[in-house]
Amino acid sequence: MNEKIVPVPEAVEIILKSVNPMPAERISLTEATGRVLCNDVVAAIDIPYSDNSAMDGFAVRAKDTADATGPSPKTLRIVDDIPAGTAPKKIIGMNECAKIMTGGIMPQGANAVVMVEFTEQTGKNLAIIKKGVREKENVRFKGEDIKAGSTVLKKGKIIRAQEVGLLAAIGRSSIMVHQRPRIAVLSTGNEIASIDEPIGSEKVFDSNSYALFSAAKEAGGSPVQMGIVRDIESELTAKLEECLSFDIIITSGGVSVGEYDITKKILSALGGEMKFSKVAIKPGKPFTFGLLNGIPFFGLPGNPASAFVSFEIFVRPAILKMLGMKNRIKRTLHGTMGADFKNKPGRTHFVRAYFSYSENGEITVSPCGVQGSGIISSLAEANCLIMITPEKSDVKKGEMVEIIPMDNLHLLNDRSASK
Amino acid sequence: MNEKIVPVPEAVEIILKSVNPMPAERISLTEATGRVLCNDVVAAIDIPYSDNSAMDGFAVRAKDTADATGPSPKTLRIVDDIPAGTAPKKIIGMNECAKIMTGGIMPQGANAVVMVEFTEQTGKNLAIIKKGVREKENVRFKGEDIKAGSTVLKKGKIIRAQEVGLLAAIGRSSIMVHQRPRIAVLSTGNEIASIDEPIGSEKVFDSNSYALFSAAKEAGGSPVQMGIVRDIESELTAKLEECLSFDIIITSGGVSVGEYDITKKILSALGGEMKFSKVAIKPGKPFTFGLLNGIPFFGLPGNPASAFVSFEIFVRPAILKMLGMKNRIKRTLHGTMGADFKNKPGRTHFVRAYFSYSENGEITVSPCGVQGSGIISSLAEANCLIMITPEKSDVKKGEMVEIIPMDNLHLLNDRSASK
Repeated sequence: MNEKIVPVPEAVEIILKSVNPMPAERISLTEATGRVLCNDVVAAIDIPYSDNSAMDGFAVRAKDTADATGPSPKTLRIVDDIPAGTAPKKIIGMNECAKIMTGGIMPQGANAVVMVEFTEQTGKNLAIIKKGVREKENVRFKGEDIKAGSTVLKKGKIIRAQEVGLLAAIGRSSIMVHQRPRIAVLSTGNEIASIDEPIGSEKVFDSNSYALFSAAKEAGGSPVQMGIVRDIESELTAKLEECLSFDIIITSGGVSVGEYDITKKILSALGGEMKFSKVAIKPGKPFTFGLLNGIPFFGLPGNPASAFVSFEIFVRPAILKMLGMKNRIKRTLHGTMGADFKNKPGRTHFVRAYFSYSENGEITVSPCGVQGSGIISSLAEANCLIMITPEKSDVKKGEMVEIIPMDNLHLLNDRSASK
Repeated sequence: MNEKIVPVPEAVEIILKSVNPMPAERISLTEATGRVLCNDVVAAIDIPYSDNSAMDGFAVRAKDTADATGPSPKTLRIVDDIPAGTAPKKIIGMNECAKIMTGGIMPQGANAVVMVEFTEQTGKNLAIIKKGVREKENVRFKGEDIKAGSTVLKKGKIIRAQEVGLLAAIGRSSIMVHQRPRIAVLSTGNEIASIDEPIGSEKVFDSNSYALFSAAKEAGGSPVQMGIVRDIESELTAKLEECLSFDIIITSGGVSVGEYDITKKILSALGGEMKFSKVAIKPGKPFTFGLLNGIPFFGLPGNPASAFVSFEIFVRPAILKMLGMKNRIKRTLHGTMGADFKNKPGRTHFVRAYFSYSENGEITVSPCGVQGSGIISSLAEANCLIMITPEKSDVKKGEMVEIIPMDNLHLLNDRSASK
């Protein structure tokens, strides 16, 4: 194990090198959004499947309508009526036409459609054409959107509603995607109490397993809360053995330097290959990463802010790689500091902060609340983390800084709805 | 009903005025992300619940350590051992201390903690203190993060993993949020065939109900695919009556000008209050909105691109308002056109496009693929819509344009994974 304090970028690199995309599974289209294709998808059919009308109107031979205008219209005999979903029954001959609806299959002989707005129907079977059309006008041709045999979506594509629509259009009701990693989330510590029980003053409610469960689910994983384990070697050993059927194990607590921080010891005893146990990050320095039976093991600190930041910086990229995604690191934005911030160099500091857009789209950002690693309220108030690199000391109001958004950028939480 | 062609902003305004936030429901914390609080949340307990140690070390009376240094340490008698989760048993008197772990409850008498790194333990019960501490140093005080009785999260807050952690920390296992709107999604048209059946050349697979189901789910709704309805009045009437138990009804197809476009007729017959049926939008002009028994009814065009764009611009904001969100319109970004684009003024044109960031964070955007309203492939290739206002004609390469992202901004799809 690396006993050094590992810089943040190196830690992320070690983690990403240690995890692999999950095996494939077949899922139905209605569950597909957010999943990543394992294979190229090839269209089995042409889209459109047949030449069809782009408009409601009359399917004609373009040359029969050549000089038609409002004052000098052309009259054609209606020989068929083709609503969408019905095969044409007639071939269109000279000076003949067929009434046709949008999506209706083009009848043989016809090569264009006159929009209904430029026609008039008289009697039972005569259409007065008031505007000539060119060949192919208002016709959608077989395969013009998608050709049978062509690759429509490539391996690695993240499925959105649009791709679901495309897959349905070519008749694919299921696809092969990378499995969601199953994630075991456990909290360790004698002081941790379940939120469903009354607590004494020496206990704290288990908030980490809820926050980490929610973050893991939002990142695309399939998490399970494995409960609270006391600082007793036999209990933790038994619980970790239960976790060996998962794809990722996340613990919080028990990785610091205290006498009761036994997680690392047990991991070694179970044959885990620890990669590092200290990172030059604030909050979250005592962060442990390793492989237990080949399963990525993330030993997060017990302090809520440390646990949450560690998840964002170290666990999320691993989940995204396992899901098959190519972009695993959140895009950072740049903003201007709205206040001074005292900083001690040496570690990458992720400062809980709130950013907002000005009218011209520029970003202003200010640290929010108390930054202690045990402080929960400032985490809920923040919509981003300011990333201060290890060599940097104090940051002045007006300086440009790099931020990592923690909100859905489209739906930024209103600050008034925070504490 | 408004028979005019309604401008896009006016249409959005009419829709948002016609829908209301959903009633409240109680949900458990593990289902809370993405939901919106109906009520302020007040903390029932202090966080921390008790004064406790921020470090592993020794709980001391600060004045006993006043002048301690490495060369000139101070020796204190250890009278207690306080791991986290255990109540202290002793009161700390003059020149006494207690071994304490991070999170351990501060014993009476002590008012600071010396970090273990600056101490040494000799024999069974003596601690050598090599660094003096000030009063309150390394102590986390009862209520310093959250005070019992204070409002920690306000009505309207969107719940993220952070808020879940905060709620768990104060022992809240469930919260009141706005219900997800239940959304009936149906496809209309004789030509529409289920993707689970073989089709003849006169049919097209039902892609819209899959795309709209997925988009509605992603927006936070609870959609149900109600199946395909043929253009037969009695069938559509019966199906719409089935939908009256939902909170939103979305149909695609049947709202154009064709003889078989019977949706609007039936809506009137059922006593629906139609608000408008044509919008100055491209693609998607024949878009119908109204209320059926007070339920928002969205009649989307049948063409896949029209249906999808209508959803983005008109249905999504309604879902977000019903979920209780304050920001309902997606944040637009600005980018430079990477290519010329021919545009006919008159309607707000939403052009399928692909944008990317340059190294300095600037955005370049280019229309992608064929823009026909029936074209599905360009929708899957696009990661944004360029919004061209109605008065604007052609757009030149190099011009600044406004775009609406359609990807998760953090995880932009790689273009190489598109068609």
